Amino acid sequence: MKTNCETKDITVGVVGLGLMGTSFIATLLMAGHKVVAIAPLPEDLIVAPGRIYNHLVQCEKSGLLSIPPSNYLSQLAITEDYLLLYSCQLVVECVIEKSEIKRLVYEKIEKTVNKTTVIATNTSAIPITVLQKYLVEPDRFLGIHWAEPSYFTRFLEITCGANTAEIYSNWVYELSYSWDKEPTLLRKDIRGFVTNRLMYAVYREGLSLVKNGQATLEDIDKSFRYDVGSWITLMGIFRRMDYLGLENFALIFEALFPHLSNNQEVPDLMEKMVDINAKGIKNLSGLYTYTSEESLKWEEAFAAFNEEIFKLAASYPVEKGVENVTIKS
Amino acid sequence: MKTNCETKDITVGVVGLGLMGTSFIATLLMAGHKVVAIAPLPEDLIVAPGRIYNHLVQCEKSGLLSIPPSNYLSQLAITEDYLLLYSCQLVVECVIEKSEIKRLVYEKIEKTVNKTTVIATNTSAIPITVLQKYLVEPDRFLGIHWAEPSYFTRFLEITCGANTAEIYSNWVYELSYSWDKEPTLLRKDIRGFVTNRLMYAVYREGLSLVKNGQATLEDIDKSFRYDVGSWITLMGIFRRMDYLGLENFALIFEALFPHLSNNQEVPDLMEKMVDINAKGIKNLSGLYTYTSEESLKWEEAFAAFNEEIFKLAASYPVEKGVENVTIKS
Repeated sequence: MKTNCETKDITVGVVGLGLMGTSFIATLLMAGHKVVAIAPLPEDLIVAPGRIYNHLVQCEKSGLLSIPPSNYLSQLAITEDYLLLYSCQLVVECVIEKSEIKRLVYEKIEKTVNKTTVIATNTSAIPITVLQKYLVEPDRFLGIHWAEPSYFTRFLEITCGANTAEIYSNWVYELSYSWDKEPTLLRKDIRGFVTNRLMYAVYREGLSLVKNGQATLEDIDKSFRYDVGSWITLMGIFRRMDYLGLENFALIFEALFPHLSNNQEVPDLMEKMVDINAKGIKNLSGLYTYTSEESLKWEEAFAAFNEEIFKLAASYPVEKGVENVTIKS
Repeated sequence: MKTNCETKDITVGVVGLGLMGTSFIATLLMAGHKVVAIAPLPEDLIVAPGRIYNHLVQCEKSGLLSIPPSNYLSQLAITEDYLLLYSCQLVVECVIEKSEIKRLVYEKIEKTVNKTTVIATNTSAIPITVLQKYLVEPDRFLGIHWAEPSYFTRFLEITCGANTAEIYSNWVYELSYSWDKEPTLLRKDIRGFVTNRLMYAVYREGLSLVKNGQATLEDIDKSFRYDVGSWITLMGIFRRMDYLGLENFALIFEALFPHLSNNQEVPDLMEKMVDINAKGIKNLSGLYTYTSEESLKWEEAFAAFNEEIFKLAASYPVEKGVENVTIKS
């Protein structure tokens, strides 16, 4: 499905210019949009332009740009003035995960934009239906959840709240193909959306195996890297079941489901992480230990890997219809 | 960790020459072992040599071989005669998933080999502790679970039964590094081993979302392809938590765990798959629908993707210690 919208005729507002916000501003500029970027923090006015430029340079290095990075910047306005959002058909909020702050942001946005402007949040923590209540016109509100960095990932989760009108969610869904995304559209607002929710089922089971001494963190990570990692980017999980053949799954479900963890408590190991103020690679204290050199290497490795897997996945667009698949011999 | 064993001095027996058996025979030959391959079915004597040769040709195309494929075949004996297993230090059973047939195979193996020969099963369905009871000397029995195709995947799950002696599991664990694997060693025999078990937690949650109309199969597959797929091969799941920063996980666990499915029943959709005799891409009937051309394209796409992701993962051996990581600029 491709949208009929001309992206150059659609101005997108972005409120919040942290790592995530600046990353998808680059994506929106690349797609041809004009972007009005609101800096809720004064320091963002200073650092955001450099961040956005660096994202574009990354994209250029990777061959994603047809014109020089600086040319895109002419389509970008960075400002503290919410009034400049008046021309936007879509405004995406990307500020910190505090409901009260988001409420104030929505108030300022709604005062400026016209009644059919879609207002979206990038939240990954707060239900859309909860945030939606803060709006005077809740039906034009929805979630747009990006993955990081947005220009090297095709993932985009569009989530409706209880009162979102379909006309708006469908519009964003179609538009997002122009951003080079493979969007998912959740018509119901479920806790954790899709990926997080399914990954939490994995965390629950994995941490239960670790607690019971049945497997180590390292073993579980290896299994996922080398087994799941060898097919997930091609197939997803249900296509994989079709690929393996479905005949034994019902039997295994019957045998295995009663053994899976139904734990509702926060696992001890995660409580411990809170107690020791572990922030993972950021403060060198996590489920694994890190030197500062190792932490930096992980950052670099992820950036490089993400770019490579993005390109690899793009050469296997099998879910769109196999007619597009070109198999290298 | 590297084993001190010289693979050329270790003869490995393989009983069962289906797709999986012939695939890891190729891996064992490439690693330098002599291999005695037992054909439990007379037709295997005819088709297995061609299969093994084709696997080696695949490896050659991919640059994994230093000498021509045919040279490896001089180290291989294919026979119906279990007595030829007498010289093996390790015998891996890879016949169909029926306990009674496996029992007979173990009986024949044990009659031939000496008392310290390790006997292993490639089962993915039957607990090691159950199969172990069929042996006269159960302490030398364990699970060695390969992924397909074994020469393009580093995954290997070594599973101890209740009575497996550590000396044998440790020996296989070390030896498997010579096969170019990143093994996991499960000292306890858990239902579903590690990957299957964690994936079943995903299937349970995913099928519950589908049943409740909260997400579609397609949406869940997209989320996994484009989100989880963009990092899992680099990090596994717990390393990813460290990467994201751990500070919010305990809070999210608390909020989300009560919403996760604790279902113990076989999901309706899977019952339906049994009723309609769905075997996925094999009989063009599964969770998705397929033409025979599409089915073939999926087979080809998986073979090609698997080879590419194998190489990509090999360039990011970050879990071994970041000193090995070379980041491409």
